[in-house]
Amino acid sequence: MEKNKKKVVASIIIIGNEILSGRTQDVNVSFLSKWLNELGVRVGEVRVIEDSEQSIIKCVKELKKKYDYVFTTGGIGPTHDDITSKSVAKAFNVSYGYHKEAYDILEKYYSSSKFTEGRKKMAKLPVKANLIYNPSSGAPGFIMDNVFCLPGVPSILKSMVDGIKSKIVGGKKILSKTISVNTVESEIAKSLANIQQKFKSIEIGSYPFFRLGKIGVSIVMRSTEIKEIEICTKEIINFIKKKKIQVIDRD
Amino acid sequence: MEKNKKKVVASIIIIGNEILSGRTQDVNVSFLSKWLNELGVRVGEVRVIEDSEQSIIKCVKELKKKYDYVFTTGGIGPTHDDITSKSVAKAFNVSYGYHKEAYDILEKYYSSSKFTEGRKKMAKLPVKANLIYNPSSGAPGFIMDNVFCLPGVPSILKSMVDGIKSKIVGGKKILSKTISVNTVESEIAKSLANIQQKFKSIEIGSYPFFRLGKIGVSIVMRSTEIKEIEICTKEIINFIKKKKIQVIDRD
Repeated sequence: MEKNKKKVVASIIIIGNEILSGRTQDVNVSFLSKWLNELGVRVGEVRVIEDSEQSIIKCVKELKKKYDYVFTTGGIGPTHDDITSKSVAKAFNVSYGYHKEAYDILEKYYSSSKFTEGRKKMAKLPVKANLIYNPSSGAPGFIMDNVFCLPGVPSILKSMVDGIKSKIVGGKKILSKTISVNTVESEIAKSLANIQQKFKSIEIGSYPFFRLGKIGVSIVMRSTEIKEIEICTKEIINFIKKKKIQVIDRD
Repeated sequence: MEKNKKKVVASIIIIGNEILSGRTQDVNVSFLSKWLNELGVRVGEVRVIEDSEQSIIKCVKELKKKYDYVFTTGGIGPTHDDITSKSVAKAFNVSYGYHKEAYDILEKYYSSSKFTEGRKKMAKLPVKANLIYNPSSGAPGFIMDNVFCLPGVPSILKSMVDGIKSKIVGGKKILSKTISVNTVESEIAKSLANIQQKFKSIEIGSYPFFRLGKIGVSIVMRSTEIKEIEICTKEIINFIKKKKIQVIDRD
């Protein structure tokens, strides 16, 4: 059964002018990608887009059709530049307004005197959305069909993903093995290309690095098939040895 | 004259399975965005895509029409997974093969005995491309029309961008001012929305943070008009004072 599981592919939409301006370094892509890989979901594409209704609507419409899952980050806070909820409602052509459950959660979280206009805005969602609970700061994320909307603040995002694990049906887990060797890419390019030809089910990547003053290359194998990876590893180690190249580490 | 300069907008395409898998943390977006902002170019969109010919062709074709400039990073090395040059040639429907100038540079860089097959591959480019010189490691990037192809290794990319500065015609420089205040977003949401309404030429962003155990919000103004930003700053400071909120720092 396991063998027939299909590939499950997601995309991530980072909504945020602060990433596009270079002011903020995104770290959510790398976190979400690793987390999704663990669930057997690979990320096929990431887009970073502006805080603009048109950009969000267009992007969500396109990617929700193209991928099994879409994750958005950012733009669900209380300020004027937080327009994700409204825009996603428009992308799905559903009504946007106070979401009863979200309203109740926020009303409880803040004492009623502190449940200000700004905070009430965070209860405005596509009205039929399912909530993603937020153990850090009350304000929920939400799910519309295959689109999961999460906040942009990394610590809050991280605290919320456990709650959606059960809603994601992944394929086989993507396994990854790395062999780091003390050489330059061009020395191993040909042999590696031959091995890639032979192992079609493995995605073989080659990444040069400079680490502690040492030049090296990390050869990364990714596949759902552990046995294939093991055979491929042997073949790589074989040609590396023949070329008298030193293996720095394996992982 | 300055006033009539049009908005110049770029997009960035990060080509790399290693970013999509979460294995590698991208840092090129933030570097390129800040560098482009200095030149009066704003980044309108970023895409991270797979090392696949079809993805690259489709993405380059779409974005080169949509944006003034497109920057790609990654996939121009010697290994089998480096397919950017070939794919960009296909996106432009031009021939791909040994680029004389690139070949000469690489032949000179490596002694002829070390100018291996793998290294020769790096001289294969869209044949009519202009080169982007590489002071770090010989292998050039290239320019096809408005598409600039750079390597993925951040230190090498950084060493190459000086050489293309003169080829980019930006608009007015995008200026940015930040006021960080000791409050939560919902406390300032309404006032900030009013100010955004008033200053249409300024993009006002609000970003919550947790720094040294302190909760705060950074209010960021971005615009090409310094005078507008100064007036806007005064209005923000005014309402912040009225609300008795502490300013943490300004920048």
